[in-house]
Amino acid sequence: MISISQNDIKQYDKYYRTHLINSLTGFKSVSLIGSIDREGFTNLAIFSQIIHVGANPPLIGILFRPDTGARHTLENIMNVQHFTINHIPASHARHAHYTSARWKTSEFEACGFTPQFSELLKAPYVKESPVQLGCEFVERQQIQANGTILIIAEIKEIRVAEGTLLEDGFVDLEKAGSITCSGLDSYHTTNKIARYSYAKAGKEPEEL
Amino acid sequence: MISISQNDIKQYDKYYRTHLINSLTGFKSVSLIGSIDREGFTNLAIFSQIIHVGANPPLIGILFRPDTGARHTLENIMNVQHFTINHIPASHARHAHYTSARWKTSEFEACGFTPQFSELLKAPYVKESPVQLGCEFVERQQIQANGTILIIAEIKEIRVAEGTLLEDGFVDLEKAGSITCSGLDSYHTTNKIARYSYAKAGKEPEEL
Repeated sequence: MISISQNDIKQYDKYYRTHLINSLTGFKSVSLIGSIDREGFTNLAIFSQIIHVGANPPLIGILFRPDTGARHTLENIMNVQHFTINHIPASHARHAHYTSARWKTSEFEACGFTPQFSELLKAPYVKESPVQLGCEFVERQQIQANGTILIIAEIKEIRVAEGTLLEDGFVDLEKAGSITCSGLDSYHTTNKIARYSYAKAGKEPEEL
Repeated sequence: MISISQNDIKQYDKYYRTHLINSLTGFKSVSLIGSIDREGFTNLAIFSQIIHVGANPPLIGILFRPDTGARHTLENIMNVQHFTINHIPASHARHAHYTSARWKTSEFEACGFTPQFSELLKAPYVKESPVQLGCEFVERQQIQANGTILIIAEIKEIRVAEGTLLEDGFVDLEKAGSITCSGLDSYHTTNKIARYSYAKAGKEPEEL
């Protein structure tokens, strides 16, 4: 094993440290967040700091960098209260990464994604996405340690590709074709190892 | 696409809803958290609500369910201030899942993992893990919407398998053999699609 101390981390240049630390949480949830401003101008941005918060009510969390400079997605969420979370199919990994550039036009058009609206939500979904969540703002918390902002939202609508919703409610993301990411710029498809039965002490989990 | 409304979600039975909502954030970071109580009794538990919070200082976040009942990991973190985050190799997916049972003995021994201590940290690492993080408690926040608790911690020590730390600081998690999970009980290995160059408007990202 290679061992890296807190002191080493401090002394690395910014670029190296950013790549290193961003790798450490493991493979991450990665999605495109669709939003819209009060004038109806759409925005699409790739995010990997997305976390499950609770099932009842259905809550999801997204961590934003401190809101200095242009943070259109956060601004739009605060102003319009609605946004969408859209999984990324493997065929569109490059296009999804491309949304992280500084665009003056809508990233939907610039990066080859199609906005799609439902009756329930003000914000646009991504038509190409196999799993789409319509979300409404619930709560905002500021992390004192570095000023990042945690947004908690409730899931108001779920749209999943046909054939991916299994009998027990589990959505087969591998069948849906959703990808995962690691670090700042690496994208991956997955291979299922197994689903395991609910764990009980003294009885090894079985494959479902 | 299959469309599910907020009303549908409310009316599902608890089991179905839990599987469904836990699937929606996409593939998740999954790790074993190693901790120790004041008497030196070790604990090991699997967590998928882990999030990157910042690179400088190096911060990581973990979301815990409301602390009713036995929440040994959270108690240990609050009491001892140190804990470890350990990626899971594919060979140990079943063992890692098994830590979620209610054990009265240490999950290290019960589930076949080896505790390993460094000089810098009170909490035990998992010897079998390809990426190990030594963490110190920084901040605690309560999510008002459902009472979950977000713990922010600083990374004090990083231990990664030889040959996985690349020139630019990126840790090749696929080479390390770290896995990802989806839903409550599904585990997956990964296949790299590509790493893409820093995105600039008007110039399609290139493979690195």
